[in-house]
Amino acid sequence: MKEDILYHFNLGTSTHDLPATFGDVKFVCVGGSPWRMKSFIEYIAAELALEDPKSEYPNICAGTDRYAMYKVGPVLSVSHGMGIPSISIMLHELIKLLHHAGCTDVTIIRIGTSGGIGLEPGTIVLTKQSVDANFLPKFEQVILGKTVVRSTDLDLGLAEELLQCSKDLSQFETVIGNTMCTMDFYEGQARLDGAFCSYSEKDKQEYLTKAYDAGVCNIEMESSVFAAMCKLSGLRAAVVCVTLLDRLKGDQLTSSHEVLHSYQQRPQILVGHFIKKLMCASAKN
Amino acid sequence: MKEDILYHFNLGTSTHDLPATFGDVKFVCVGGSPWRMKSFIEYIAAELALEDPKSEYPNICAGTDRYAMYKVGPVLSVSHGMGIPSISIMLHELIKLLHHAGCTDVTIIRIGTSGGIGLEPGTIVLTKQSVDANFLPKFEQVILGKTVVRSTDLDLGLAEELLQCSKDLSQFETVIGNTMCTMDFYEGQARLDGAFCSYSEKDKQEYLTKAYDAGVCNIEMESSVFAAMCKLSGLRAAVVCVTLLDRLKGDQLTSSHEVLHSYQQRPQILVGHFIKKLMCASAKN
Repeated sequence: MKEDILYHFNLGTSTHDLPATFGDVKFVCVGGSPWRMKSFIEYIAAELALEDPKSEYPNICAGTDRYAMYKVGPVLSVSHGMGIPSISIMLHELIKLLHHAGCTDVTIIRIGTSGGIGLEPGTIVLTKQSVDANFLPKFEQVILGKTVVRSTDLDLGLAEELLQCSKDLSQFETVIGNTMCTMDFYEGQARLDGAFCSYSEKDKQEYLTKAYDAGVCNIEMESSVFAAMCKLSGLRAAVVCVTLLDRLKGDQLTSSHEVLHSYQQRPQILVGHFIKKLMCASAKN
Repeated sequence: MKEDILYHFNLGTSTHDLPATFGDVKFVCVGGSPWRMKSFIEYIAAELALEDPKSEYPNICAGTDRYAMYKVGPVLSVSHGMGIPSISIMLHELIKLLHHAGCTDVTIIRIGTSGGIGLEPGTIVLTKQSVDANFLPKFEQVILGKTVVRSTDLDLGLAEELLQCSKDLSQFETVIGNTMCTMDFYEGQARLDGAFCSYSEKDKQEYLTKAYDAGVCNIEMESSVFAAMCKLSGLRAAVVCVTLLDRLKGDQLTSSHEVLHSYQQRPQILVGHFIKKLMCASAKN
């Protein structure tokens, strides 16, 4: 792996000058929104009793508005924007950063929101495989004009550990299942409320029912390339997304702002519990 | 087109309650970075002498960190993040907003940065057609699991008007040519400096030379879906990207921070001149 500038992170240094402080990273949490990843680092600092009352948890990538990055103890929290290309740029630079910082045994978890299929809104889905729009567990990457197919399996052992954490907490429903990853939020997810729509409510229901029958529990926009790149680089990876609505019943969010906010906290609560549990266990050993 | 909540813009209102203030929009400029689109609105306000010394140019989408939106007079400036999925969500909601606000004869211009092929860094490319990784002028949209092919032609008359503006200004080189739009910044653009690389410098040079021979002047990550969606919705559209480097000569930026900054101003200067010229012409009629 070539040493170079992590251009989109804009850390103002090349990879061989990376601050030694990255060397202790064991957990990386990634999510779409910079605000949410800041909120996550504040939450995890409190959970791990690593809060510094004076600290503002500075954005490590403050030189850019492409991504935001925060760190407390062994936990790194990074935003990735929306969609496969945006998270793919971030992952290339993150994987290089972890490599050059000499990090080992890193667990990486994407926390996010999604549309559920046949699940009560507020359910967390732990992704087993990320599937494409035809429900196949693969990610197609175009390299030099040729399509390369990559596996989108995630770490099933890790998903099961996270499921156990949800049972420990007993605060919300959590399931393990497949996640459909799409290139578009409107037409790509069979929504009727985009700027264009060339299909009927009936076509939409047929498609979503086929997805449900194929084992798709939820739909989001980043899991396939996340699974593929983590697998290629040997990172233990999970996708933890809460469902904000049941797409079989509609396209628009109908829950109140407060309810949606509480749903959005759930992946953070689950992953916070998981990290705390692992750190307590390793402190005892 | 259904009336509904523009969820990712988080305007706190449904489309039929949109502020009447959007009705006068004639020009929309979009670009990846929220910071840059704020800088653009400040620049255009000064150019059009519409500055309000007290105004802070508030972010209309302040309720979200997904996108940022600014407005001054008939000009709307909106950020779209990185990559096709991110800009596609923004365009769905923007097209709905313009439709429900009753806007007519809108011109939309993407301003951004790109990697050039065989051009001096700092050259502006006005996109004729956006082409895929095999240099074909099409955008593939997956709808209900089926691939739909859409045209990626942009408005050639508009590109020629912009070229004339560059001649008026005589500050930098501008060309009209094809733009390759990729799903990934590293492997998708034949870079050797990503986290993974399965090809050689020779493979890369062969691929980029083929692109050059096919008329590709530059590479970026949003133009194909931008061209396709603008064409479908009848918006007069152009893509104005400056090249920051010549990809035939390398992968990393080598110009100084100051030089890169001046390159990044060029699309803004060109589009600012274009809008001012059109507004002066229409004020005379």
